[in-house]
Formats: sequence, structure tokens, C-alpha cells
Amino acid sequence: MNLFYAAYGFSLCLGLLCVLFVSVWSSYWRGGFAWDGSFLQFNWHPVLMVSGLVVLYGSAAIVFRVPSTWKHRKYIWKLVHGGLMFLALLLSVLGLCAVFDFHKAFYIPDLYSVHSWVGLMTVVIFSFQWVLGLAGFLFPCTPLWFRSTIKPFHMWLGKAILILSLTSCISGINEKLLLTLNGSTGELYSSLPAEAKFVNFLGVLIVTFGMVIFGILSYKKWQRPETNEAVHPLLNDIRP
Amino acid sequence: MNLFYAAYGFSLCLGLLCVLFVSVWSSYWRGGFAWDGSFLQFNWHPVLMVSGLVVLYGSAAIVFRVPSTWKHRKYIWKLVHGGLMFLALLLSVLGLCAVFDFHKAFYIPDLYSVHSWVGLMTVVIFSFQWVLGLAGFLFPCTPLWFRSTIKPFHMWLGKAILILSLTSCISGINEKLLLTLNGSTGELYSSLPAEAKFVNFLGVLIVTFGMVIFGILSYKKWQRPETNEAVHPLLNDIRP
Repeated sequence: MNLFYAAYGFSLCLGLLCVLFVSVWSSYWRGGFAWDGSFLQFNWHPVLMVSGLVVLYGSAAIVFRVPSTWKHRKYIWKLVHGGLMFLALLLSVLGLCAVFDFHKAFYIPDLYSVHSWVGLMTVVIFSFQWVLGLAGFLFPCTPLWFRSTIKPFHMWLGKAILILSLTSCISGINEKLLLTLNGSTGELYSSLPAEAKFVNFLGVLIVTFGMVIFGILSYKKWQRPETNEAVHPLLNDIRP
Repeated sequence: MNLFYAAYGFSLCLGLLCVLFVSVWSSYWRGGFAWDGSFLQFNWHPVLMVSGLVVLYGSAAIVFRVPSTWKHRKYIWKLVHGGLMFLALLLSVLGLCAVFDFHKAFYIPDLYSVHSWVGLMTVVIFSFQWVLGLAGFLFPCTPLWFRSTIKPFHMWLGKAILILSLTSCISGINEKLLLTLNGSTGELYSSLPAEAKFVNFLGVLIVTFGMVIFGILSYKKWQRPETNEAVHPLLNDIRP
């Protein structure tokens, strides 16, 4: 149990560091934020994607693992899980809007890089997963056979989305540094200026966060004990 | 069981397609292969990394899940697993040599991009995991408490390495296309020439392969039934 809280605390610290680092990158090195189609609007893209698609998503994925939640009704934590995931999805969609608006203003084609293909694939699959999760686990009228059938699929797809998120974020960070540092700033990425070191380290933080979240999800002993799985999702585990 | 073989067959097809696509990319669009420090030596890098660090690694990770292997002694499949992983590691190290030699010949600094940081991190952790696996599961003198302690860690780290591999490969493909298409060829990546479409699709194949491997690893019912876990790793499951 202590080991769980150590891992959980570590994941929270890493998540906060990721948000801090990506915000400092956008505000200190890239000039801050705006929503006007300029480079400053683009700066929302990494911040929203890292915060939503990686940190909030990863944190929402492990809420059922926290032992102090096991004494509450499970459906409360399903609502928390679904709510946090909705927020993660919202931030991700806003992050996409930021980059599409920026592209439009600068006549840059959309969706040409493998980063953008995998990134869009991530958000589309995430949207599908959220709707499926809502239909399968929160709608009162959902048949139980449907719920039990999709549960392993939901758990697998949840992990797969996190993998896609990590892949999208690292390839996106790499793309941004290659285009920016080798372009307008005059500082080559290959000369590893301070910004490059800082943001490369952000990349290491992001993948480490992902690995810790996978560790927490993988360790069977940390799973919430199953109770009354046969009854309805909104009624099971009716301890007060 | 039929669903397992469908997923397994799908993963094999995807893996073969990944190797085929990355080989066609390097040979048809990038001029083929050599080991002389030229661009043609670089071309070994994506082929060896995708083949070793993703496809062979992923295929080796799931050998214990194949039901037709369950009638054999487990240690035989441990040797197969360890052997395939060694081959995957060897290909990955050769892939690193290819890019380091190329950098040396062209005076390009090593290890400046987030792709290279995460990629090197992947191979270093993979090497550590292989040595740990050898010591923990194949050495006859290893105490059983050590084996049972590291087993969940080994399984988690194995998945984490696959995530890192996928992340490294996608960011590397993105980097290569950005530098090559926007550089010497005169065809902008953003205009999505045939090479870009083909290689972006390779990226989608790679992440899909990774997702299917995770699916196979995640589904509990497909795990090899545990037998005689208390006895020695080289002696357990002694059915002929």
C-alpha cells in the first residue's frame, strides 16, 4: 500500500512537472499565449495536449486504483473518472483548435506530418472511447452483458490511447523544436541551446510519467477489489 | 481461443507490413543500403530500429501467450523469449551504430533531439531489462524470492520499453521526413508527396502493431496458465 502511494505521489509530481515545463516553454521561450491565429495561439497547442491528453488523461486512468476511494460507491468514482476524461478530451480538442486556427492564419497545410496523423488518430479514438464508456458504464439502461463484454476492451483501449498520446506528444515536441530552432531563431537544434535541453527534458518527464501510470495500471494487486459485478453499474458496490 | 489467433495473426501481418514498409522506404526513396558512413548507412537506422525494437520486440513479448506453446516446458519458451529479445537488442544496437557512424562522417552532433534522448533511453533500459531477465529467470543459481519479486517489475518494464520504442520510432520517422523532405529533395513535407504519405502510413502501421501487442498482453484470459510457480524457473512446468 505504501508502495502504491509512493508511485501515485511520484506520478502526481511528474504530471505537475510536465504541465509546469510545457507552460514555461510556451511562455518564456515562445512568447506566451493568445487566441488570435498568431504563433502565440499555437503555443496553447503543446500546453493543452500535454496537460489534457497526457497528464489529466493519465491521472484519470488511475483513479480506481487509489485505495482511499474503495470505501466509496464505485459509481461516484466512475463519474469522477468520466468527468476527468471529459475535461481531458475538451482540453485536447481545444489544443487541436489552437493549431488548426494557427495553420489557417499562416496558410500552413493541416495534417501532413506523421505526428499530426497519429495525434488526430489519438483524439478520434479517445472520443470514441469516451462515448463508449458513457454508454457502457454510466447509462442506466445499458444491458449488463454489454458492459461486461466491453470492459476488457475499454481497459485495453484506455491504455492504447495513452500510448498514442505519449507518441503524439514526443513526436510533436521534436517537430516543433526542429522547425522553430532550425528556422527563425538562428539557434540550431543540434547545438543544444538552453531551450532544447529544457524541452528535451520535458520529453523525458512525459515518457517517465507515462511509464509510471502504466506501472500503476499493470500491477494487479493495486486493482480495486471487484464487488457485486453482476448488479447494475449504477447500483453496484452500494456501501455508503 | 479463435479470437486470440485472430489477434496474433493480425499482429504478425502488421509486423511484417512494418518491416516491408520501412525497407521499401529506405531502399526505394532513400537510395538503399551501405555501411560506409554515407546517407546509405543511415538508411539502416530506421530499418533496424523498426524491425528490432518494435516488431521483433513486440513479437517476442507475446510468445508466452500462444496457446500451442503451453504444452511445452516453460523454460524452452523462456529461452525462445530471451533469444528473440537478444536478437531485438542486437538489431537495435546495430541501428544505433548506423546513425552514430553516419553522424561522425558528416560532423553532425549526436544526441541532440528529444527523439535521440528517448531512443537512447529505450535501448539502455532494454539492455538493463535483458540482463535482469537473464539473471532473474534463466540463471540456475537465482534465488526464487528474487525471481518472484522481479516478475511484476519485469512485466511492467517490458511494456514500458515497448511504449518507449513506439515513441522513439514515430518521433524518429517524423524527424527524418522533416529534415529530408524539407531539405535536399525540394519536395516539402507539407505538400504530402508520395513518400510522405507512404511513410506516414508506416507510422500508423507501427502504432497499430503496438496497440495490438498491448491488447494481447492485457487480456488476462490469454495469459499462460501458471503451473508450479514455486519451483525453480528451469525446472518448473516439467510436462514433457
